Order: sequence, then structure tokens, then C-alpha cells
Amino acid sequence: MKFCSQCGSDQLRFDVPAGDNRPRYWCPACETIHYQNPKVVVGAIPVWEDKVLLCRRAIEPRKGYWTLPAGYMENGETLQEGAARETWEEACATVAVGDLYTVFNLPHIYQVYVFFLGPMVNGDYGVGEESSDARLFTEDEIPWDELAFPTIGRTLRYFFQDRANNGPYPVRVQDIAPLGRTPRDD
Amino acid sequence: MKFCSQCGSDQLRFDVPAGDNRPRYWCPACETIHYQNPKVVVGAIPVWEDKVLLCRRAIEPRKGYWTLPAGYMENGETLQEGAARETWEEACATVAVGDLYTVFNLPHIYQVYVFFLGPMVNGDYGVGEESSDARLFTEDEIPWDELAFPTIGRTLRYFFQDRANNGPYPVRVQDIAPLGRTPRDD
Repeated sequence: MKFCSQCGSDQLRFDVPAGDNRPRYWCPACETIHYQNPKVVVGAIPVWEDKVLLCRRAIEPRKGYWTLPAGYMENGETLQEGAARETWEEACATVAVGDLYTVFNLPHIYQVYVFFLGPMVNGDYGVGEESSDARLFTEDEIPWDELAFPTIGRTLRYFFQDRANNGPYPVRVQDIAPLGRTPRDD
Repeated sequence: MKFCSQCGSDQLRFDVPAGDNRPRYWCPACETIHYQNPKVVVGAIPVWEDKVLLCRRAIEPRKGYWTLPAGYMENGETLQEGAARETWEEACATVAVGDLYTVFNLPHIYQVYVFFLGPMVNGDYGVGEESSDARLFTEDEIPWDELAFPTIGRTLRYFFQDRANNGPYPVRVQDIAPLGRTPRDD
């Protein structure tokens, strides 16, 4: 952020504004404070018969790795609508979004991940624009070493564990620490 | 948003950028897309003995009305850290943040509300800067007609209902529609 989006000033500061308790971008010319807050990444666990639908990322970060369909929640939608939209966009599949399942704090990258159970309404799927492949996997076939993000692996492990017990599928809320190699996720 | 925060241009557009599927603010001069996403409001249900701690809002919206401590999640914190921070800032109380309890979609105002159970570590509390009062209420004393937001009333009703049953306290995920009178919340 280099210019004030309200008045165009190039004198933006990044320090603690009067009456606040943490540094923000703010404009001394028009006094607008430019708040920045965490983003929500929302996704689904699309299930058909005994298989889970994963897609292969066609874009960075983690291009070529497998993921559950997920992406940034958009203004004007609910969490569940976002989960269904991302599943459609990335894997051309329609899910009946069900219960909240996993919630992950990723404070180092200012994100909260949220996954919902998502039974597919039929076995149809395809390869969305941001994917290079999409496939239904049984538990034995999951490419555990080629998953894009820790949030994906944890969610899948819980899912298969709960399914092996014939449920329940309790909500898990967990923190994810920065990776040793790169504190990046998406 | 009137100016590009990246290059200062005053030629910002609001329409569907190339390769996207929804309108965004974007800059034809430097091609930056200015994404805007929902914000997370996070709070706690601070409980001491048989009472819940509410605070009275000293600021708009809904100034003078009672609320559970809650506010915008900040970059760099977890949901639980946000819930504890807001309880400290608004009601000067320390909570041992526990399980996730309620999640509300408010798509019309681009917000997701998240409340956690929050046993107080002691009976101390006070009036924070954004509050004009703070008080412990038994169920019978809750000012139901003077609560600030629908999210607060619903969370309190579920809490007292679950407590009357001696638990469990299952997670609820719900949508909240715009109010008839004013589609505003905070």
C-alpha cells in the first residue's frame, strides 16, 4: 500500500493511529485508516460413494499438488455458498454442503481455513480453470505426499478416521504453524 | 475506493477484470486488482459462576445496547486470541477461551461472526474504552430487548438452553438475514 485509496496522497504512514493500539496504514492528509484483516479460505470435502474428489493446482502456490477445492470467501456469500462455489469452479462438481468440519488458524499468513462436509449430488466432475486435473480417490489412493497444504492433509485424515468409526464428524479447530521451509499458504 | 493504492491512479474501475467472474475494483494503469473479502468478527461468552458478562456499547452502531465482547479479528492472531483480546479490551476480563460455539453468516454486510465459550479465570472485570458499562447477568437478568445484534441474542439463548440441559454445547452455524429496519451490524 503506497497511496491513500481515499484521497490519493503518497504520504501514507504505517504506525499506531491516535486512539488505536496497533500499527495500521493511515493517511495524515485525510485521516482515513486503512484496516487490514484476515481472510477466510473456505472449501468442501466432496464425497462420492467411498471416494473423495481432489483437484490438482494449475496455479502457484503449490502448482502441481493436490488439494480439496477451496478458495477465498467472497463478499455477499455465506461460508457454505463459498464452499459450493469453489467446488464448482475448481472441480466442476455440485455438492450439498453439510456440517462445518474443520477450522484452522494460520495467523502467520493472516488466514482462517474453513472446511465443510460436502456430499456430491452426483458423480459428475471436471477440471476447473485453476486446476490441471481432478480425480476421485479412495482412502488408499490419496497422494499424501503430494498434498498442497497442511490444512488439506489434516482435514482428510480426520475425515477418513471419523468415517472408519461410522461417525460422528465433530468440528475440529486447530492452529497451523509456519512451515519450516516457507511460511506461505493459499 | 477512489484511488489505486498501488500507483495512485484516479482511473479505478469497478467491473469484471479479465479472467475473473465478478466485479472488482481494479486499476487499468498498473493492473492491480483490489480484492475485497468478508471480515471475521470474533467474540467470547465470558462466564463467571452462573452469570454472563455483557458490556454496553459506547460507540455506534447500536450505542447504548448490550453485547457480548466481540470485534474484528486482527492480522497475526488466531480466532481464540482475538476472542480473548476483545474480551479484555471491551470488558477488562480474562477468559480461558474454550470450544467454538456459534458461527453466523451475515452476507449482506460481508461478515462472519464467530463466538467461543469463555470461562472467566476470575470474577474481575471493568469497563473498556469502547464500552460505557459492563455487568454480570444471570439468565433472568439478561436485557433481551436491549441487545445490540441478533448474533448476541441467538448465542445467549443457545448458551442458556445448553446449560439448562447440562450440555453438550454443540457448534451452531447459521445465517442471519438483513434486519427490516437497517441492514447494519458490526
